[in-house]
Amino acid sequence: MEKSIGIVGAGIGGLHLALYLQKHGIQATVLTDRAPEQYAATRLMNTVAHHGVTVARENELGVNHWDDPEFVYHHHDHFFNFPGSPLLFRGAFKQPSRAVDYRIYLPALMKDFEDRGGAIEYASIQDDDIPALVSRFDLLVVSTGKGALGRMFSHRPELSPYNQPQRLLCVGLYDGVDHGSPQGGDPRGVTLSVSPGHGEMIVIPTLTFGGMKTALLMENIPGGDLAELVSLNYDNDPSAFRQTLLDKLETHHPHTYDRIDTHRFDLAQPLDLLQGAVVPTVRRSSVGFDDGRLAIALGDVHSVVDPMMGQGANMASYAAFELGKAITEAVAFDDRFVETVDRARENRVLAAARWTNLMLQPPSEAMGRLIVTMAQNRALCDEFTDNFNYPERQWDRLASDRRIHAWIDDRTRLAA
Amino acid sequence: MEKSIGIVGAGIGGLHLALYLQKHGIQATVLTDRAPEQYAATRLMNTVAHHGVTVARENELGVNHWDDPEFVYHHHDHFFNFPGSPLLFRGAFKQPSRAVDYRIYLPALMKDFEDRGGAIEYASIQDDDIPALVSRFDLLVVSTGKGALGRMFSHRPELSPYNQPQRLLCVGLYDGVDHGSPQGGDPRGVTLSVSPGHGEMIVIPTLTFGGMKTALLMENIPGGDLAELVSLNYDNDPSAFRQTLLDKLETHHPHTYDRIDTHRFDLAQPLDLLQGAVVPTVRRSSVGFDDGRLAIALGDVHSVVDPMMGQGANMASYAAFELGKAITEAVAFDDRFVETVDRARENRVLAAARWTNLMLQPPSEAMGRLIVTMAQNRALCDEFTDNFNYPERQWDRLASDRRIHAWIDDRTRLAA
Repeated sequence: MEKSIGIVGAGIGGLHLALYLQKHGIQATVLTDRAPEQYAATRLMNTVAHHGVTVARENELGVNHWDDPEFVYHHHDHFFNFPGSPLLFRGAFKQPSRAVDYRIYLPALMKDFEDRGGAIEYASIQDDDIPALVSRFDLLVVSTGKGALGRMFSHRPELSPYNQPQRLLCVGLYDGVDHGSPQGGDPRGVTLSVSPGHGEMIVIPTLTFGGMKTALLMENIPGGDLAELVSLNYDNDPSAFRQTLLDKLETHHPHTYDRIDTHRFDLAQPLDLLQGAVVPTVRRSSVGFDDGRLAIALGDVHSVVDPMMGQGANMASYAAFELGKAITEAVAFDDRFVETVDRARENRVLAAARWTNLMLQPPSEAMGRLIVTMAQNRALCDEFTDNFNYPERQWDRLASDRRIHAWIDDRTRLAA
Repeated sequence: MEKSIGIVGAGIGGLHLALYLQKHGIQATVLTDRAPEQYAATRLMNTVAHHGVTVARENELGVNHWDDPEFVYHHHDHFFNFPGSPLLFRGAFKQPSRAVDYRIYLPALMKDFEDRGGAIEYASIQDDDIPALVSRFDLLVVSTGKGALGRMFSHRPELSPYNQPQRLLCVGLYDGVDHGSPQGGDPRGVTLSVSPGHGEMIVIPTLTFGGMKTALLMENIPGGDLAELVSLNYDNDPSAFRQTLLDKLETHHPHTYDRIDTHRFDLAQPLDLLQGAVVPTVRRSSVGFDDGRLAIALGDVHSVVDPMMGQGANMASYAAFELGKAITEAVAFDDRFVETVDRARENRVLAAARWTNLMLQPPSEAMGRLIVTMAQNRALCDEFTDNFNYPERQWDRLASDRRIHAWIDDRTRLAA
């Protein structure tokens, strides 16, 4: 069958899908409102780490332009700021992860797609454009939630337990934070630092316009001592911003604070700060139109997660490949097609949402036991860490307290 | 973890599960109200063909006591009683199918299970027994719809399009119907005979207490000329029953009538007749109880289909293996466990229900084209026939008219 695919949105989901289809000889048109040359002057979009499975997909697409030991990291350091008895332990990945500023990453992939003959149309989509878009393509993929497009897909309350953000985000790219180095005795890693009752901070070595810098992804609990950072203004008084942040870090995330050169500490660039919040939401996969055509949701439009566990982009890329495979094999774009796509992607994508939603809650007694056990059992913590690649496996372990205890018991027996 | 599994019901689903678990070292207790020695004096329970995939599962369990070329069949003959221009064509299986009277089959497997150390408890389950059963086992599997047990699982209206039977069944085991023979020039096959507007008849070579006989599974449309057979009494006047049936067969299913020795034609035994009807229904997979335990549905309790496409028993066996595998690997019997089971079984099981429900409807134009094309394209009809083993593949082909046309076009191109 003829397959003309329209993809609205040029995030990782839209671009990985476009590149996948291009590689498999299917014509895809990407529609986006932002040209590649506009990204450099754009505010920080996110701080995203690609785990090994996503890097492998980049290799498959031939778009891994950052295949360099200089850019990757190998482990998670977990720090818990328990009063008087802080806890610090490490878990390693089997394959390294890597974070590249999306203002570098996305335009590079857009260029790859265009260089290989792909079509990108630059236009802002308005509500009244939707019917024309739907009838223009055999299948419309919606991978941007902007405007009316995202709202077409109805919310699934049974999978969306929150109706407001669980964290207030203050995310920046900073100079002056030591995150290890490939040459040093302490290789590069991400730190997951927890200040109980106040929030988490993910410290990510990131390739930026200015080389390797450090992302501080602060996940602050509403009502906690760090919550105000979501609206602390940098531009009005950079020095006051820096000092407030350093004071908070010293109190709540001392393990990271101790690695900061306070004289050099600053945003890498003034636009390298993003403040806001996310309501984790799962939406229906597809919407049907009168003429029998349908639009299918990809990435954040399908499931947007809080960034805490680093799953959003990795899930969008994963789902793009599963959708691409289904499109390649499809004989019709109908309800059965949507079912096939969902069967392929939902286990992992929904597990990522559920796992992340669980981690946004105060830890249960079982989760507390897991943390304490991982601090003493490196193999268990390695498994937890590598499962960032496989959220469905993580969810198989964590979906209930009984499962958490069973996992700990089993791995503790192995270790004994 | 300790796993004590209770299985209510000793049909193919319950017994295949019990034998699977036994083989994998997990203790299962089967509860049923009918002892093996009672089956011989029981009325015909069904007329079930096991397709190649089910026979393969029997081999895996070591319970295929009927592994003999004498008992199997190899193809479907399709007959359409179009006035003036009847249509007859054949499709073959890759692996043979086989039908054994369940009054022979089920006690044989019960004996296998008990001979290998399995426990079967013979008792009728009443409503008030349920709480005790649930707390007695780590997991309760319900594979009988009798009494309150089946009603615990709520009906899924989105997958249950009918609220009344679509066919009135008149099912018997007969002497005097030629269905081919392994030695003859025409090897054994099943005939699927259609009398448009009046119903279908499936003619199945079946191993019975008296050796190889023929099952006539008559699927008569309410309001049609054959509908009355659902209540035609045999015992009151066997000869009138026979004559009425012969007259109807001559009119509506002449291809089969022509293979009947009218002098020998009769029920093999007086109890070999079953009349009734089925409302195709899909139910929720599980039900939770206060103490966190759950019961999970298997086989007809989960999805009962009209017998027309011969899917019910094959799906129960398939689902039993998928459930058995999930139990073997389970660390907890919780909602995630049910999800895992459903992910494993639903694509095939629900496809069988949807495909069967579609075939109960008058054929669409696309379906009509498929029939006519299969009559001329043996490879296409072979594929349709072998897909009786894989309902999910059949549904991928038949789920919409567009898919049916795409399938025909593709296979017609191949043939050209």
